[in-house]
Amino acid sequence: MRYKVTISYDGYNYMGFQIQDDLPTIELEIKKAFKKMLNKDIKIYPSGRTDRHVHAKGQVFHFDLLDMDIPADGITRGLNAFLPFDIHIINTEIVDDNFHARFSAKSKEYRYYINTGLYNPLTVRYMPNITNLDVNLMKEAISLLKGTHDFKGFASAQIDKRKSTIKTIYDAYINQNDDILEFVFIGSGFLKYQIRRMMGLLVEIGRGFEKKEKINYVLEMKDPSISHKVLDGLGLYLYKVNY
Amino acid sequence: MRYKVTISYDGYNYMGFQIQDDLPTIELEIKKAFKKMLNKDIKIYPSGRTDRHVHAKGQVFHFDLLDMDIPADGITRGLNAFLPFDIHIINTEIVDDNFHARFSAKSKEYRYYINTGLYNPLTVRYMPNITNLDVNLMKEAISLLKGTHDFKGFASAQIDKRKSTIKTIYDAYINQNDDILEFVFIGSGFLKYQIRRMMGLLVEIGRGFEKKEKINYVLEMKDPSISHKVLDGLGLYLYKVNY
Repeated sequence: MRYKVTISYDGYNYMGFQIQDDLPTIELEIKKAFKKMLNKDIKIYPSGRTDRHVHAKGQVFHFDLLDMDIPADGITRGLNAFLPFDIHIINTEIVDDNFHARFSAKSKEYRYYINTGLYNPLTVRYMPNITNLDVNLMKEAISLLKGTHDFKGFASAQIDKRKSTIKTIYDAYINQNDDILEFVFIGSGFLKYQIRRMMGLLVEIGRGFEKKEKINYVLEMKDPSISHKVLDGLGLYLYKVNY
Repeated sequence: MRYKVTISYDGYNYMGFQIQDDLPTIELEIKKAFKKMLNKDIKIYPSGRTDRHVHAKGQVFHFDLLDMDIPADGITRGLNAFLPFDIHIINTEIVDDNFHARFSAKSKEYRYYINTGLYNPLTVRYMPNITNLDVNLMKEAISLLKGTHDFKGFASAQIDKRKSTIKTIYDAYINQNDDILEFVFIGSGFLKYQIRRMMGLLVEIGRGFEKKEKINYVLEMKDPSISHKVLDGLGLYLYKVNY
Protein backbone atom coordinates (compact mmCIF):
# COMPACT_ATOMS: atom_id res chain seq x y z
CA MET A 1 0.00 0.00 0.00
CA ARG A 2 1.40 3.39 -1.02
CA TYR A 3 0.73 6.48 1.08
CA LYS A 4 1.05 10.16 0.08
CA VAL A 5 1.76 12.37 3.07
CA THR A 6 1.54 16.19 3.20
CA ILE A 7 3.75 17.70 5.89
CA SER A 8 4.45 21.18 7.25
CA TYR A 9 7.50 22.21 9.25
CA ASP A 10 9.35 25.09 10.79
CA GLY A 11 12.80 24.51 9.31
CA TYR A 12 14.67 26.95 11.51
CA ASN A 13 16.09 24.33 13.86
CA TYR A 14 16.94 21.79 11.13
CA MET A 15 19.85 21.27 8.77
CA GLY A 16 17.44 20.60 5.89
CA PHE A 17 15.15 17.79 4.79
CA GLN A 18 17.66 15.14 3.81
CA ILE A 19 19.11 12.84 6.46
CA GLN A 20 22.77 13.57 7.38
CA ASP A 21 23.77 10.99 9.98
CA ASP A 22 22.59 12.20 13.37
CA LEU A 23 22.33 15.89 12.54
CA PRO A 24 18.86 17.37 13.08
CA THR A 25 16.98 16.92 9.81
CA ILE A 26 13.31 16.60 8.90
CA GLU A 27 13.86 13.14 7.37
CA LEU A 28 15.55 11.84 10.54
CA GLU A 29 12.60 13.00 12.66
CA ILE A 30 10.11 11.29 10.33
CA LYS A 31 12.12 8.06 10.37
CA LYS A 32 12.35 8.18 14.17
CA ALA A 33 8.58 8.73 14.40
CA PHE A 34 7.91 5.76 12.09
CA LYS A 35 10.25 3.58 14.13
CA LYS A 36 8.47 4.46 17.37
CA MET A 37 5.03 4.03 15.79
CA LEU A 38 5.53 0.87 13.71
CA ASN A 39 8.82 -0.52 15.04
CA LYS A 40 10.02 -0.54 11.41
CA ASP A 41 12.53 1.36 9.30
CA ILE A 42 10.46 3.07 6.62
CA LYS A 43 12.05 4.53 3.51
CA ILE A 44 10.45 7.82 2.47
CA TYR A 45 10.53 9.59 -0.90
CA PRO A 46 10.09 13.38 -0.71
CA SER A 47 9.02 15.64 -3.60
CA GLY A 48 12.48 17.16 -3.23
CA ARG A 49 14.89 18.33 -0.57
CA THR A 50 14.69 21.59 1.29
CA ASP A 51 17.84 23.34 2.52
CA ARG A 52 18.90 24.29 6.03
CA HIS A 53 16.36 26.63 7.72
CA VAL A 54 13.88 26.34 4.81
CA HIS A 55 10.27 25.92 5.95
CA ALA A 56 7.40 23.98 4.40
CA LYS A 57 3.69 24.65 4.36
CA GLY A 58 3.02 21.66 2.10
CA GLN A 59 5.97 19.33 1.49
CA VAL A 60 4.93 15.87 0.21
CA PHE A 61 6.54 12.44 0.58
CA HIS A 62 5.40 8.93 -0.20
CA PHE A 63 6.19 5.59 1.39
CA ASP A 64 5.06 1.99 1.10
CA LEU A 65 3.75 -0.33 3.78
CA LEU A 66 3.93 -4.05 3.15
CA ASP A 67 2.08 -6.62 5.26
CA MET A 68 0.33 -3.87 7.22
CA ASP A 69 -3.04 -2.30 6.69
CA ILE A 70 -3.17 1.06 8.46
CA PRO A 71 -5.84 3.60 7.50
CA ALA A 72 -4.55 6.92 6.16
CA ASP A 73 -5.84 8.85 9.15
CA GLY A 74 -4.00 6.44 11.44
CA ILE A 75 -0.73 7.39 9.76
CA THR A 76 -1.45 11.10 10.29
CA ARG A 77 -2.35 10.70 13.95
CA GLY A 78 0.34 8.15 14.69
CA LEU A 79 3.19 10.18 13.20
CA ASN A 80 1.96 13.42 14.80
CA ALA A 81 2.02 11.72 18.19
CA PHE A 82 5.77 11.10 17.82
CA LEU A 83 6.96 14.08 15.75
CA PRO A 84 8.42 17.16 17.47
CA PHE A 85 6.15 20.22 17.80
CA ASP A 86 7.71 22.01 14.81
CA ILE A 87 6.98 19.21 12.30
CA HIS A 88 3.37 18.27 11.59
CA ILE A 89 1.57 15.89 9.24
CA ILE A 90 -1.33 17.74 7.59
CA ASN A 91 -2.86 14.89 5.64
CA THR A 92 -2.28 11.30 4.48
CA GLU A 93 -3.93 9.63 1.48
CA ILE A 94 -3.71 6.12 0.08
CA VAL A 95 -2.58 6.46 -3.55
CA ASP A 96 -2.05 4.34 -6.64
CA ASP A 97 1.21 2.38 -6.80
CA ASN A 98 2.28 4.54 -9.75
CA PHE A 99 2.28 7.70 -7.67
CA HIS A 100 5.75 9.07 -6.91
CA ALA A 101 6.15 12.17 -4.72
CA ARG A 102 9.00 13.44 -6.88
CA PHE A 103 8.32 12.18 -10.40
CA SER A 104 4.54 12.66 -10.38
CA ALA A 105 4.80 16.32 -9.32
CA LYS A 106 3.44 18.62 -12.07
CA SER A 107 4.58 21.85 -10.46
CA LYS A 108 5.84 23.29 -7.23
CA GLU A 109 5.11 26.56 -5.50
CA TYR A 110 7.68 28.28 -3.33
CA ARG A 111 7.24 31.56 -1.48
CA TYR A 112 9.87 33.86 -0.03
CA TYR A 113 9.13 36.52 2.59
CA ILE A 114 11.06 39.71 3.32
CA ASN A 115 10.36 42.17 6.14
CA THR A 116 11.13 45.62 4.70
CA GLY A 117 10.20 47.42 7.93
CA LEU A 118 11.88 47.64 11.31
CA TYR A 119 13.86 44.67 12.62
CA ASN A 120 11.38 42.38 14.38
CA PRO A 121 12.81 39.75 16.75
CA LEU A 122 9.47 37.94 16.61
CA THR A 123 9.63 37.22 12.88
CA VAL A 124 13.37 37.03 12.24
CA ARG A 125 13.31 33.21 12.07
CA TYR A 126 10.74 33.48 9.25
CA MET A 127 11.81 36.36 7.02
CA PRO A 128 15.01 38.32 6.62
CA ASN A 129 14.91 42.05 7.25
CA ILE A 130 15.92 44.00 4.12
CA THR A 131 15.14 47.69 3.73
CA ASN A 132 15.23 50.29 0.94
CA LEU A 133 13.85 48.06 -1.80
CA ASP A 134 12.26 49.50 -4.95
CA VAL A 135 9.30 47.11 -5.18
CA ASN A 136 8.11 48.28 -8.60
CA LEU A 137 11.53 47.64 -10.07
CA MET A 138 11.58 44.17 -8.48
CA LYS A 139 8.13 43.47 -9.94
CA GLU A 140 9.49 44.23 -13.42
CA ALA A 141 12.57 42.13 -12.76
CA ILE A 142 10.77 39.05 -11.39
CA SER A 143 8.65 38.80 -14.55
CA LEU A 144 11.84 38.29 -16.59
CA LEU A 145 12.26 34.95 -14.81
CA LYS A 146 8.97 33.59 -16.18
CA GLY A 147 9.06 31.04 -18.98
CA THR A 148 11.28 28.15 -19.99
CA HIS A 149 14.99 28.88 -19.49
CA ASP A 150 18.24 27.17 -18.72
CA PHE A 151 18.55 28.22 -15.06
CA LYS A 152 22.10 26.88 -14.67
CA GLY A 153 23.39 30.39 -13.91
CA PHE A 154 21.12 30.53 -10.84
CA ALA A 155 21.92 27.02 -9.58
CA SER A 156 24.51 25.80 -7.14
CA ALA A 157 27.88 25.20 -8.83
CA GLN A 158 27.78 21.69 -7.29
CA ILE A 159 24.71 20.34 -9.10
CA ASP A 160 24.83 17.02 -10.92
CA LYS A 161 26.10 17.80 -14.43
CA ARG A 162 24.16 14.92 -15.99
CA LYS A 163 20.83 16.49 -15.06
CA SER A 164 19.01 19.05 -17.18
CA THR A 165 19.02 22.61 -15.88
CA ILE A 166 16.17 23.63 -18.19
CA LYS A 167 13.06 24.40 -16.16
CA THR A 168 9.85 26.37 -16.64
CA ILE A 169 8.62 29.07 -14.29
CA TYR A 170 4.87 29.28 -14.93
CA ASP A 171 4.36 32.32 -12.75
CA ALA A 172 6.43 34.62 -10.55
CA TYR A 173 5.11 37.72 -8.81
CA ILE A 174 5.30 39.84 -5.68
CA ASN A 175 2.52 40.60 -3.19
CA GLN A 176 2.95 43.48 -0.78
CA ASN A 177 1.21 43.56 2.59
CA ASP A 178 2.34 46.55 4.66
CA ASP A 179 6.05 45.98 5.33
CA ILE A 180 6.01 42.36 4.19
CA LEU A 181 6.89 41.31 0.66
CA GLU A 182 5.75 37.88 -0.51
CA PHE A 183 7.55 36.50 -3.58
CA VAL A 184 5.64 33.66 -5.28
CA PHE A 185 7.36 31.23 -7.67
CA ILE A 186 5.39 28.48 -9.42
CA GLY A 187 7.47 26.22 -11.65
CA SER A 188 7.99 22.78 -13.10
CA GLY A 189 10.80 22.31 -10.61
CA PHE A 190 13.68 24.24 -9.11
CA LEU A 191 17.42 23.58 -8.95
CA LYS A 192 19.46 23.55 -5.76
CA TYR A 193 19.80 27.16 -4.46
CA GLN A 194 17.88 28.46 -7.52
CA ILE A 195 15.23 30.42 -5.64
CA ARG A 196 17.64 31.75 -3.02
CA ARG A 197 20.01 32.92 -5.80
CA MET A 198 17.18 34.44 -7.88
CA MET A 199 16.03 36.20 -4.70
CA GLY A 200 19.58 37.44 -4.08
CA LEU A 201 19.70 39.08 -7.48
CA LEU A 202 16.17 40.47 -7.17
CA VAL A 203 17.20 42.14 -3.90
CA GLU A 204 20.33 43.61 -5.49
CA ILE A 205 18.12 45.01 -8.26
CA GLY A 206 15.63 46.34 -5.68
CA ARG A 207 18.46 48.11 -3.83
CA GLY A 208 19.79 49.63 -7.04
CA PHE A 209 23.10 47.72 -7.06
CA GLU A 210 22.23 45.84 -10.26
CA LYS A 211 20.10 46.61 -13.32
CA LYS A 212 17.15 44.33 -14.02
CA GLU A 213 18.85 43.25 -17.28
CA LYS A 214 21.34 41.31 -15.14
CA ILE A 215 18.65 38.62 -14.94
CA ASN A 216 18.78 38.05 -18.70
CA TYR A 217 22.58 38.09 -18.55
CA VAL A 218 22.69 35.35 -15.89
CA LEU A 219 20.18 33.27 -17.87
CA GLU A 220 22.22 33.67 -21.07
CA MET A 221 25.66 33.07 -19.58
CA LYS A 222 24.61 29.84 -17.77
CA ASP A 223 27.56 30.31 -15.41
CA PRO A 224 26.89 29.73 -11.69
CA SER A 225 30.14 31.51 -10.82
CA ILE A 226 28.74 34.92 -11.81
CA SER A 227 28.55 36.19 -8.28
CA HIS A 228 25.57 37.67 -6.60
CA LYS A 229 23.91 37.49 -3.24
CA VAL A 230 22.27 34.24 -2.05
CA LEU A 231 19.44 34.92 0.38
CA ASP A 232 19.01 33.03 3.65
CA GLY A 233 17.02 29.80 3.69
CA LEU A 234 14.91 31.03 6.60
CA GLY A 235 12.73 33.24 4.36
CA LEU A 236 11.90 30.39 1.98
CA TYR A 237 8.80 28.17 2.14
CA LEU A 238 7.96 25.11 0.05
CA TYR A 239 4.34 26.15 -0.22
CA LYS A 240 2.65 23.47 -2.29
CA VAL A 241 3.40 20.54 -4.59
CA ASN A 242 0.83 20.08 -7.36
CA TYR A 243 0.13 16.61 -8.82
CA MET B 1 21.54 60.80 32.82
CA ARG B 2 18.42 58.60 32.75
CA TYR B 3 17.51 56.60 29.65
CA LYS B 4 14.15 55.07 28.71
CA VAL B 5 14.57 52.04 26.46
CA THR B 6 11.82 50.28 24.45
CA ILE B 7 12.63 46.66 23.72
CA SER B 8 11.02 43.81 21.77
CA TYR B 9 11.75 40.12 22.23
CA ASP B 10 10.76 36.63 21.24
CA GLY B 11 10.38 35.10 24.69
CA TYR B 12 10.15 31.49 23.55
CA ASN B 13 13.72 30.60 24.44
CA TYR B 14 13.81 32.51 27.72
CA MET B 15 12.75 31.74 31.29
CA GLY B 16 11.19 35.20 31.62
CA PHE B 17 12.40 38.77 32.00
CA GLN B 18 13.82 38.68 35.51
CA ILE B 19 17.35 37.46 36.08
CA GLN B 20 17.64 33.98 37.68
CA ASP B 21 21.34 33.26 38.11
CA ASP B 22 22.67 31.92 34.81
CA LEU B 23 19.37 30.72 33.36
CA PRO B 24 18.49 32.30 30.01
CA THR B 25 16.50 35.46 30.81
CA ILE B 26 15.96 38.74 29.00
CA GLU B 27 17.50 40.74 31.85
CA LEU B 28 20.67 38.62 31.82
CA GLU B 29 21.11 39.20 28.08
CA ILE B 30 20.67 42.97 28.52
CA LYS B 31 23.19 43.04 31.38
CA LYS B 32 25.67 41.00 29.33
CA ALA B 33 25.23 43.39 26.37
CA PHE B 34 25.82 46.43 28.64
CA LYS B 35 28.91 44.78 30.10
CA LYS B 36 30.36 44.14 26.63
CA MET B 37 29.45 47.62 25.40
CA LEU B 38 30.41 49.77 28.39
CA ASN B 39 32.48 47.39 30.53
CA LYS B 40 30.12 48.25 33.40
CA ASP B 41 27.42 46.49 35.41
CA ILE B 42 24.25 48.46 34.72
CA LYS B 43 21.16 48.08 36.88
CA ILE B 44 17.96 48.15 34.82
CA TYR B 45 14.39 48.84 35.94
CA PRO B 46 11.69 47.25 33.75
CA SER B 47 8.03 48.30 33.59
CA GLY B 48 7.34 44.86 35.01
CA ARG B 49 8.39 41.27 34.59
CA THR B 50 7.22 38.95 31.89
CA ASP B 51 6.91 35.19 32.51
CA ARG B 52 8.63 32.29 30.79
CA HIS B 53 7.91 32.22 27.00
CA VAL B 54 6.04 35.55 27.10
CA HIS B 55 6.94 37.86 24.21
CA ALA B 56 7.18 41.66 24.07
CA LYS B 57 6.49 44.08 21.26
CA GLY B 58 7.13 47.08 23.50
CA GLN B 59 8.57 46.33 26.93
CA VAL B 60 10.21 49.38 28.58
CA PHE B 61 13.07 49.70 31.07
CA HIS B 62 15.09 52.60 32.39
CA PHE B 63 18.65 52.89 33.62
CA ASP B 64 21.06 55.60 34.71
CA LEU B 65 24.51 56.41 33.40
CA LEU B 66 26.85 58.38 35.62
CA ASP B 67 30.07 59.97 34.39
CA MET B 68 29.28 59.02 30.78
CA ASP B 69 27.59 60.96 28.06
CA ILE B 70 26.29 58.59 25.39
CA PRO B 71 23.64 59.76 22.92
CA ALA B 72 20.33 57.84 22.99
CA ASP B 73 20.88 56.43 19.52
CA GLY B 74 24.31 55.15 20.59
CA ILE B 75 22.63 53.09 23.33
CA THR B 76 20.20 51.57 20.79
CA ARG B 77 22.91 50.68 18.30
CA GLY B 78 25.44 49.59 20.89
CA LEU B 79 23.07 47.23 22.73
CA ASN B 80 21.71 45.79 19.46
CA ALA B 81 25.25 44.96 18.38
CA PHE B 82 25.64 42.70 21.42
CA LEU B 83 22.11 41.36 22.00
CA PRO B 84 21.05 37.98 20.54
CA PHE B 85 18.91 38.04 17.40
CA ASP B 86 15.66 37.43 19.31
CA ILE B 87 16.00 40.50 21.55
CA HIS B 88 16.03 43.95 19.96
CA ILE B 89 16.11 47.54 21.20
CA ILE B 90 13.50 49.57 19.28
CA ASN B 91 14.21 52.99 20.69
CA THR B 92 16.10 54.86 23.42
CA GLU B 93 15.24 58.31 24.80
CA ILE B 94 16.88 60.51 27.38
CA VAL B 95 14.26 61.25 30.05
CA ASP B 96 13.77 63.35 33.13
CA ASP B 97 15.28 62.01 36.36
CA ASN B 98 11.75 61.58 37.73
CA PHE B 99 10.84 59.04 35.07
CA HIS B 100 10.50 55.48 36.34
CA ALA B 101 9.69 52.64 33.92
CA ARG B 102 7.43 50.96 36.47
CA PHE B 103 5.99 53.75 38.60
CA SER B 104 5.46 56.29 35.80
CA ALA B 105 3.48 53.82 33.67
CA LYS B 106 -0.13 55.02 33.21
CA SER B 107 -1.37 51.85 31.57
CA LYS B 108 -0.21 48.67 29.91
CA GLU B 109 -1.50 46.80 26.90
CA TYR B 110 -1.17 43.04 26.60
CA ARG B 111 -2.37 40.90 23.71
CA TYR B 112 -2.96 37.17 23.58
CA TYR B 113 -3.20 35.17 20.35
CA ILE B 114 -4.97 31.86 19.75
CA ASN B 115 -4.93 29.85 16.53
CA THR B 116 -8.40 28.29 16.23
CA GLY B 117 -7.60 26.56 12.92
CA LEU B 118 -5.40 23.62 12.04
CA TYR B 119 -2.22 22.98 14.00
CA ASN B 120 0.52 25.09 12.42
CA PRO B 121 4.14 24.18 13.27
CA LEU B 122 5.21 27.60 11.95
CA THR B 123 3.21 29.58 14.54
CA VAL B 124 3.13 27.23 17.49
CA ARG B 125 5.83 29.19 19.36
CA TYR B 126 3.62 32.29 19.11
CA MET B 127 0.04 31.19 19.73
CA PRO B 128 -1.54 28.07 21.21
CA ASN B 129 -3.86 26.04 19.02
CA ILE B 130 -7.35 25.85 20.57
CA THR B 131 -10.39 24.82 18.54
CA ASN B 132 -14.17 24.84 18.95
CA LEU B 133 -14.44 28.22 20.63
CA ASP B 134 -17.70 30.19 20.67
CA VAL B 135 -16.25 33.61 19.92
CA ASN B 136 -19.47 35.56 20.48
CA LEU B 137 -19.81 34.05 23.94
CA MET B 138 -16.17 34.94 24.69
CA LYS B 139 -16.81 38.51 23.51
CA GLU B 140 -19.66 38.81 26.03
CA ALA B 141 -17.49 37.25 28.74
CA ILE B 142 -14.38 39.41 28.20
CA SER B 143 -16.43 42.59 28.66
CA LEU B 144 -17.28 41.48 32.22
CA LEU B 145 -13.59 41.94 33.07
CA LYS B 146 -13.67 45.66 32.25
CA GLY B 147 -13.67 48.17 35.09
CA THR B 148 -12.11 48.42 38.54
CA HIS B 149 -12.12 45.12 40.41
CA ASP B 150 -10.16 43.20 42.98
CA PHE B 151 -8.46 40.70 40.64
CA LYS B 152 -7.04 38.56 43.46
CA GLY B 153 -9.04 35.55 42.26
CA PHE B 154 -7.21 35.68 38.91
CA ALA B 155 -3.74 36.18 40.39
CA SER B 156 -1.07 33.71 41.35
CA ALA B 157 -1.58 32.34 44.87
CA GLN B 158 2.01 33.39 45.59
CA ILE B 159 1.64 37.15 45.13
CA ASP B 160 2.88 39.53 47.81
CA LYS B 161 -0.02 39.89 50.28
CA ARG B 162 0.97 43.45 51.22
CA LYS B 163 0.28 44.71 47.71
CA SER B 164 -3.12 45.81 46.47
CA THR B 165 -4.86 43.47 44.07
CA ILE B 166 -7.32 46.17 42.95
CA LYS B 167 -6.69 47.10 39.34
CA THR B 168 -8.62 48.73 36.51
CA ILE B 169 -9.10 47.21 33.07
CA TYR B 170 -9.86 50.16 30.77
CA ASP B 171 -10.66 48.02 27.79
CA ALA B 172 -10.77 44.33 26.86
CA TYR B 173 -11.96 42.97 23.54
CA ILE B 174 -11.41 40.31 20.88
CA ASN B 175 -10.44 40.80 17.24
CA GLN B 176 -10.92 37.94 14.79
CA ASN B 177 -8.79 37.58 11.66
CA ASP B 178 -9.55 34.31 9.86
CA ASP B 179 -8.50 31.56 12.27
CA ILE B 180 -6.60 33.88 14.59
CA LEU B 181 -8.15 35.42 17.68
CA GLU B 182 -6.46 38.47 19.19
CA PHE B 183 -7.41 39.28 22.79
CA VAL B 184 -6.56 42.86 23.80
CA PHE B 185 -6.29 43.92 27.45
CA ILE B 186 -5.53 47.53 28.40
CA GLY B 187 -5.27 48.17 32.12
CA SER B 188 -3.67 50.14 34.92
CA GLY B 189 -1.51 47.13 35.65
CA PHE B 190 -1.79 43.35 35.84
CA LEU B 191 -1.00 40.86 38.60
CA LYS B 192 1.29 37.87 38.21
CA TYR B 193 -0.49 35.26 35.99
CA GLN B 194 -3.62 37.48 35.80
CA ILE B 195 -3.93 37.57 32.03
CA ARG B 196 -3.03 33.91 31.55
CA ARG B 197 -5.64 32.93 34.18
CA MET B 198 -8.30 35.27 32.72
CA MET B 199 -7.51 33.75 29.30
CA GLY B 200 -7.83 30.26 30.78
CA LEU B 201 -11.34 30.99 32.04
CA LEU B 202 -12.33 32.74 28.80
CA VAL B 203 -11.30 29.64 26.86
CA GLU B 204 -13.31 27.38 29.20
CA ILE B 205 -16.32 29.64 28.61
CA GLY B 206 -15.69 29.58 24.85
CA ARG B 207 -15.61 25.78 24.87
CA GLY B 208 -18.84 25.59 26.89
CA PHE B 209 -17.27 24.12 30.02
CA GLU B 210 -18.07 27.18 32.14
CA LYS B 211 -20.80 29.85 32.06
CA LYS B 212 -19.73 33.44 31.53
CA GLU B 213 -21.05 34.28 35.03
CA LYS B 214 -18.06 32.37 36.42
CA ILE B 215 -16.06 35.55 35.76
CA ASN B 216 -18.18 37.52 38.23
CA TYR B 217 -17.91 34.64 40.71
CA VAL B 218 -14.08 34.61 40.56
CA LEU B 219 -14.01 38.40 40.95
CA GLU B 220 -16.36 38.25 43.96
CA MET B 221 -14.73 35.30 45.74
CA LYS B 222 -11.19 36.77 45.52
CA ASP B 223 -9.80 33.26 45.97
CA PRO B 224 -6.91 32.24 43.66
CA SER B 225 -7.49 28.58 44.57
CA ILE B 226 -10.76 28.45 42.56
CA SER B 227 -9.33 26.28 39.84
CA HIS B 228 -9.43 26.93 36.15
CA LYS B 229 -7.10 26.64 33.21
CA VAL B 230 -3.97 28.84 32.98
CA LEU B 231 -2.99 29.43 29.35
CA ASP B 232 0.60 29.12 28.09
CA GLY B 233 2.90 32.11 28.24
CA LEU B 234 3.85 31.69 24.58
CA GLY B 235 0.59 33.28 23.33
CA LEU B 236 1.05 36.41 25.47
CA TYR B 237 2.64 39.68 24.31
CA LEU B 238 3.45 42.77 26.36
CA TYR B 239 2.33 45.06 23.58
CA LYS B 240 2.81 48.57 24.88
CA VAL B 241 3.47 50.55 28.05
CA ASN B 242 1.82 53.96 28.09
CA TYR B 243 3.35 56.86 30.06
